[in-house]
Amino acid sequence: MRSLTRIASAMLVVASTLALFPAVSRAADDEADRPPNFVIVFADDLGYGDLSAYGHPTIRTPHLDRMAREGIRLTQFYSAAPVCTPSRAALLTGRLPVRNGMCSDRRRVLFPDSKGGLPAEERTIAEALRERGYATACVGKWHLGHRPEFLPTRQGFDRYFGIPYSNDMDRDPSKAPQGRAAFRDPKPEYWNVPLLSGEKEIERPADQRTITSRYTEEAVRFIRESRDRPFFLYLAHNLPHVPLFAGEEFRGRSARGLYGDVIEEIDHGVGKILDTLREEGLAERTFVIFTSDNGPWLTFADHGGSAGLLRAGKGTTWEGGVRVPCIVWRPGTVPAGVIHHGLASTLDLFPTLVRLAGASLPSGVELDGVDQSRMLLTAAESAREVVWYYRGTQLYAVRKGPFKAHFITEGSYGGPARKEHDPPLLYHLEHDPSEAYDVAASHPDVVAELKGLFDRQREAVKPAASQLEL
Amino acid sequence: MRSLTRIASAMLVVASTLALFPAVSRAADDEADRPPNFVIVFADDLGYGDLSAYGHPTIRTPHLDRMAREGIRLTQFYSAAPVCTPSRAALLTGRLPVRNGMCSDRRRVLFPDSKGGLPAEERTIAEALRERGYATACVGKWHLGHRPEFLPTRQGFDRYFGIPYSNDMDRDPSKAPQGRAAFRDPKPEYWNVPLLSGEKEIERPADQRTITSRYTEEAVRFIRESRDRPFFLYLAHNLPHVPLFAGEEFRGRSARGLYGDVIEEIDHGVGKILDTLREEGLAERTFVIFTSDNGPWLTFADHGGSAGLLRAGKGTTWEGGVRVPCIVWRPGTVPAGVIHHGLASTLDLFPTLVRLAGASLPSGVELDGVDQSRMLLTAAESAREVVWYYRGTQLYAVRKGPFKAHFITEGSYGGPARKEHDPPLLYHLEHDPSEAYDVAASHPDVVAELKGLFDRQREAVKPAASQLEL
Repeated sequence: MRSLTRIASAMLVVASTLALFPAVSRAADDEADRPPNFVIVFADDLGYGDLSAYGHPTIRTPHLDRMAREGIRLTQFYSAAPVCTPSRAALLTGRLPVRNGMCSDRRRVLFPDSKGGLPAEERTIAEALRERGYATACVGKWHLGHRPEFLPTRQGFDRYFGIPYSNDMDRDPSKAPQGRAAFRDPKPEYWNVPLLSGEKEIERPADQRTITSRYTEEAVRFIRESRDRPFFLYLAHNLPHVPLFAGEEFRGRSARGLYGDVIEEIDHGVGKILDTLREEGLAERTFVIFTSDNGPWLTFADHGGSAGLLRAGKGTTWEGGVRVPCIVWRPGTVPAGVIHHGLASTLDLFPTLVRLAGASLPSGVELDGVDQSRMLLTAAESAREVVWYYRGTQLYAVRKGPFKAHFITEGSYGGPARKEHDPPLLYHLEHDPSEAYDVAASHPDVVAELKGLFDRQREAVKPAASQLEL
Repeated sequence: MRSLTRIASAMLVVASTLALFPAVSRAADDEADRPPNFVIVFADDLGYGDLSAYGHPTIRTPHLDRMAREGIRLTQFYSAAPVCTPSRAALLTGRLPVRNGMCSDRRRVLFPDSKGGLPAEERTIAEALRERGYATACVGKWHLGHRPEFLPTRQGFDRYFGIPYSNDMDRDPSKAPQGRAAFRDPKPEYWNVPLLSGEKEIERPADQRTITSRYTEEAVRFIRESRDRPFFLYLAHNLPHVPLFAGEEFRGRSARGLYGDVIEEIDHGVGKILDTLREEGLAERTFVIFTSDNGPWLTFADHGGSAGLLRAGKGTTWEGGVRVPCIVWRPGTVPAGVIHHGLASTLDLFPTLVRLAGASLPSGVELDGVDQSRMLLTAAESAREVVWYYRGTQLYAVRKGPFKAHFITEGSYGGPARKEHDPPLLYHLEHDPSEAYDVAASHPDVVAELKGLFDRQREAVKPAASQLEL
């Protein structure tokens, strides 16, 4: 009885039959051997506490909640950076942004006047999978360089439909009120953001009121058109980043206000994608992963999201800045109803997806992600033990197991000044996820170990020339 | 499509057939007409964010999570007071503690030297149901008076097994270290708390390491022995109130540390109770309600719980002090898988249970609870529109619909001094559950309306002589 209880506790309700580790590396000559499809749905500035499945009291996300019940919900999953551009670069390459210049301490992200982007020699998930015969599509926000040579079509994606940077850029001073007023009552014409199809601008300003539903339609179209071959879809919604826009069908629907309307529209889109996969008979051969690029932007009052019980938000290396929801689904393969506490990162997606596809990892490239396929296939322990917390090019904190040491902190995005800590602040994140109780004084050995890790990492990984300052 | 979406949004997954409002008021002559059983499981100082179903990242509560999937999970449910004694008095009587003296501004709760208790003329749920032929049992912490005339056996309960007040009282200075050290590494002999069976002391000090499992065993025994008649079980765990104790089987099991061990043991007990109901064929005739007496006690570092995304904790009238988890279950009657945002309160349990049992409400008594049976039976809208926030005898805040106005605040239990606000602080709790963004300046009409409600309530309900100061 006791051991049964322990197993139940460790795995929760594993309602489906666990698939054994599949032989995915053979050639995909027939249907059964065809490598699996992958869909990544990436939200923008959605916080750890913004889904009903993660405890939000008034935002309704029935489709994501169902996806969690049918798959694995991760509770200690991290984006690799607390802001947009470096976070996206890390997800697509499996590499820390310091290695390829996709971060900066002067300009946190790419802006419309930036000339840089993700270097061509960086290998993305899309490139690795396309070589394996995958159809590939990027739908939504890119933010890894908007000059033609940096667009998704140059980084392994057959198709692209979306905006090249954030939805609050290209503000038009002739139309938008000054300051925050533009965000409180946003209109699409305030921001002269282009909408691209492939490499061609097809609309400017993009009509942001309909953009979420158009992304979903484009995603559904790609899935239907790609049904007979393996595919990779990277659907990066540009919301709930401010300014907030919800489609007509969703506006005014959520008890949470406009922010909730936006989340509920994204949730509805996830439902449509899962329905499409089921209708096309593809559900059981498709991994779907939902996550977010960083924590909530707390400087926009109720137009920003919630980090739940985590401290602070976007732009910081507190947990609220980088710990995000993550749900992984593939009926019959990913065990159902598992709540997993293992450490994992957007950095892990590159090696994990490549492994699951039976493709090969790039040689001679230093990856920061680890292969988490066993965790996803069997609810096994995570292969990751350490999490690095970078802000721009600088290492601020490190987590090993349950302990996190902050050597540098920043109060909030654009908030209190940078502060160095010696000794570091130390938190036991599994006992104290809110980072409320510093335990450095009672754990000198842990402090010493984490200081060693921190120093070695700073020494080993020197920032490449920044693409964000070009 | 649009209206279907809206219904889905309003009700979430109502997986079971909705029962129509049953005719429960007929005489219980045969099995089919027998009124339903009720089990209330009441945790002590368990916070809004402490269950996995409410988003805790490392505490595992698979039994409560399952109970939520099979029933209704309420996200805006309140205890009637931010500390123990008044909260319990309100739950059992459906009346605000100011009406019957079960609160005080000098002594927040009853202590071992207190002479008062819940007045005999107050009518409890147990009394109302016993008159209807119910077997009744109180298991666990009472805290409504420990002199014989105030014990559960004098307030409608056939049986009692538990401790008469909090588990941190009767501290033995000859055995316990001074200050917080006793709580960091607690041993049962530090607190000379008596364990009662009926009105008889059977153990002193109570062995708190085994107390949770003994409560569960007692609850299971009562259910089995009462299987042939309607019953009411009030199971009030004295944990996770500090000092924390977990049974041998649970100690060291949770990633959340000792606090998590304690919650996981309570969760395991809930699983045993639900299993017992299923085994006895009683699941479909038994309402089970899980909730907590107030928010987490934040002054005990990681031995205190988490209010999740809510502000502050126990002892305050911020949401973290009084908003608590609440899950309601009765397979085949309470709709399954509903996440309900309606306002509700422990005050509502008295009229709701009495109504569901077909018993009559006391006449000539001013009740503060409202009948929520329609909400529980059909996921209909809540019958409650207003929530009062009292601290001791004083009204501090009022909520109507989504808006809450704080006229007085207290930073924390024993923390910053009382502060009056004119104009009040105003929060839109459905947009801003964390009470971060005061919107009083932009909502003068709402402020005026809530001020009117506040003033009228203060005028209408004058505090009775305190039982806690006797």
